Amino acid sequence: MEFGQILMMLLVLFLLARFASGIVERLGFPGLIGEIVVGIIVANLAINGTTLFDVLELDFGNQNNPSYAVLYTFSELGVIFLLFSVGLETRVKDLLGSGKTAMFVAVLGVIVPFVLGFAFIQFNDGNFHHAMFMAAAMVATSVGITARVIKDMHLMDVKESRIIISAAVIDDVLGMIVLAIVKGTAGSSGEMNILSIISVTLIACIFVIGIILIAKYGIPYLDRCWTNINNKREKPLRAPNALAFAIIFCLFFAWLAEEIGLAAIIGSFLAGMLFSSYAEEKHLIEHVESITTLFISFFFVHVGLQVDLGAMSDTAVVIDVIVVLIIALISKYIGCGLGAKISERSLSSDSVKIIGIGMIPRGEVGIIVAAIGLHLIVDGEPALSAELYSVIVVMAVATTIIAPPLLARAYKRKYNGHAYQDYLEE
Amino acid sequence: MEFGQILMMLLVLFLLARFASGIVERLGFPGLIGEIVVGIIVANLAINGTTLFDVLELDFGNQNNPSYAVLYTFSELGVIFLLFSVGLETRVKDLLGSGKTAMFVAVLGVIVPFVLGFAFIQFNDGNFHHAMFMAAAMVATSVGITARVIKDMHLMDVKESRIIISAAVIDDVLGMIVLAIVKGTAGSSGEMNILSIISVTLIACIFVIGIILIAKYGIPYLDRCWTNINNKREKPLRAPNALAFAIIFCLFFAWLAEEIGLAAIIGSFLAGMLFSSYAEEKHLIEHVESITTLFISFFFVHVGLQVDLGAMSDTAVVIDVIVVLIIALISKYIGCGLGAKISERSLSSDSVKIIGIGMIPRGEVGIIVAAIGLHLIVDGEPALSAELYSVIVVMAVATTIIAPPLLARAYKRKYNGHAYQDYLEE
Repeated sequence: MEFGQILMMLLVLFLLARFASGIVERLGFPGLIGEIVVGIIVANLAINGTTLFDVLELDFGNQNNPSYAVLYTFSELGVIFLLFSVGLETRVKDLLGSGKTAMFVAVLGVIVPFVLGFAFIQFNDGNFHHAMFMAAAMVATSVGITARVIKDMHLMDVKESRIIISAAVIDDVLGMIVLAIVKGTAGSSGEMNILSIISVTLIACIFVIGIILIAKYGIPYLDRCWTNINNKREKPLRAPNALAFAIIFCLFFAWLAEEIGLAAIIGSFLAGMLFSSYAEEKHLIEHVESITTLFISFFFVHVGLQVDLGAMSDTAVVIDVIVVLIIALISKYIGCGLGAKISERSLSSDSVKIIGIGMIPRGEVGIIVAAIGLHLIVDGEPALSAELYSVIVVMAVATTIIAPPLLARAYKRKYNGHAYQDYLEE
Repeated sequence: MEFGQILMMLLVLFLLARFASGIVERLGFPGLIGEIVVGIIVANLAINGTTLFDVLELDFGNQNNPSYAVLYTFSELGVIFLLFSVGLETRVKDLLGSGKTAMFVAVLGVIVPFVLGFAFIQFNDGNFHHAMFMAAAMVATSVGITARVIKDMHLMDVKESRIIISAAVIDDVLGMIVLAIVKGTAGSSGEMNILSIISVTLIACIFVIGIILIAKYGIPYLDRCWTNINNKREKPLRAPNALAFAIIFCLFFAWLAEEIGLAAIIGSFLAGMLFSSYAEEKHLIEHVESITTLFISFFFVHVGLQVDLGAMSDTAVVIDVIVVLIIALISKYIGCGLGAKISERSLSSDSVKIIGIGMIPRGEVGIIVAAIGLHLIVDGEPALSAELYSVIVVMAVATTIIAPPLLARAYKRKYNGHAYQDYLEE
């Protein structure tokens, strides 16, 4: 094993990814798009028949390739820590008290895309697992991208923004339950039955609700105990290093979730939520973000590496991309808008539009779901085909590119012009 | 490749390492000792003939074992980022202006241990490469441990402390030049000649001095250019993410150093120094420390994993350990003390003692040198034998355990008692 080779692979991919993400961000889009494009170029652009991929010795076919093992671990740890930091910013209190409207927006914003996505693939392709993973990838709104756009426009405090952010968080939790169900039903056996779906749903719900209860009651209780013990001692006990403690919990819940058949990111998201009340006091978010900065680019590069541009030359796949993208845009827009309108009749149509558009970006979560499907083997073949994987990646990237300008325009119409200008100048 | 398996390996080793380091720190010793012990236990303690090592599938023999590739990469990145953060705290200005006494202490503190260490192994074992690596491992004072003890005693501002810290930093740079020479001469060929030693010394000096010059003149110049460009523009250019920028430089110089035959840590230390003037402003040290927190424990566990307790049952090895430890203690004490006394005749014998003892801890740097020797293959065998590797690890750990109480006692004698008490109560 040549460490120099591994070091070079990490250096080259990180350098290219950050460079591309910097350019793309300057153009006003989320940086992850640039990183995915780097992955696609590395895997697909051949000079004299040799891709950069070959030079870096990233042989996917060889399961024991050390460079690939390191890249894969970095990319997985990247999403694990990313979702951990999203969890750190999700307070259980806010989640539970975020209001009826956000709940309606989230629930309808999950059901409509799931049903439409499932129906299209089941009707078109006929493979139940493919349809389930496509449906799950349709569901998850990317909190990060939505929040980032609103933050860039300095409209964090308006009503629509609060509904969108709360709904996106609930949507994340629902999306993870959906992912757990989809992954569980695919993993359990080739035969589908209503009983296994119920049992997986139950396990997922118990896991998620259990951790929420621990976060709400268990952690504050332990905190009071610790304070009580220290108040009685002459010399207070030194608290353990908060970051190391958090890393242990993050890795533990990621591993546990993976072990009981959920996705590792569900575990790390919930572990983040466990610590959310203490995140600010201990500067946990900054610390975890430093770790995420190192790892996360490798995830998006890895996403791009797996996109087969060759498949896009097939007209059927291109049509799939277009139809899936249209479904993705319309289903969220209608589902979320409808949810908002049902819950609050008094909302203006401008507000309903803002909420509908704000929930559109799929970003990393859709891609993570697709990656899980691609790597999950059911009856000897991946639960999601390579073509549909590429379709989902293109769909997720496209929604992420399309939504920010539309959202900015919708806000502009309601909030008198200047916001969009500010956003462009940012 | 099972990601769950890799995740479990990372989780178990990190958990054990942090737990042990917490206990050891509470006893008043540096935490790395606990992490090394964890490594030794994992590799050597068998229950029913199975070590934890086997359970975690860390098969060293198999070069293509994915778990081992990940562990090895984590441990290497750990020291690379550790030395990067030491570099970040080393200002070129302070280094160049740290005074004649510190320079004398550092130079004699390098020459005496090097000569004695080399002589003992050359006389005893007869292998030139073994003797060179032992000598190099004898040289490097661990800045981190020394500084930590002084900081814990709140005596950062007294004269002896300033001399120790400055000398430890110069010692680090000299130690790296020595390591570069040793590594270069071992790597160049089986045959030794004065010409290859001179050329390696030149390359090492040019590399180190070149980077110091870039840090002193190049970086401030680029900074002024950037400011000038931005002053002329209406809309200032956005600065790139400082952490990502620093990571790229760190990995690049680590790779470059490795490529030209120096150790990767020399590159990352110097890369850190390049950024040292901006480290505070950009909060770089905290960010890099978060990354180091994740990685560094794996380095010390890995150190322990490679210690063969079986070898310690050999009387000859035990005698080696004792002799090497005595040489390590005496050579630094005499070399540094002599350097201080020669440079400043007026120093009291208490001050000379403090300086001599303060330079004793070898800690991570000695171990890093030994690990490089163990992994460097010269003429078909490691440049440092497995027995001598274990001897150096035990020596480094022992100096780290012995020095802090002796140093505290020496300070106590000079500074009237309370410091040692404070240290014990810390």
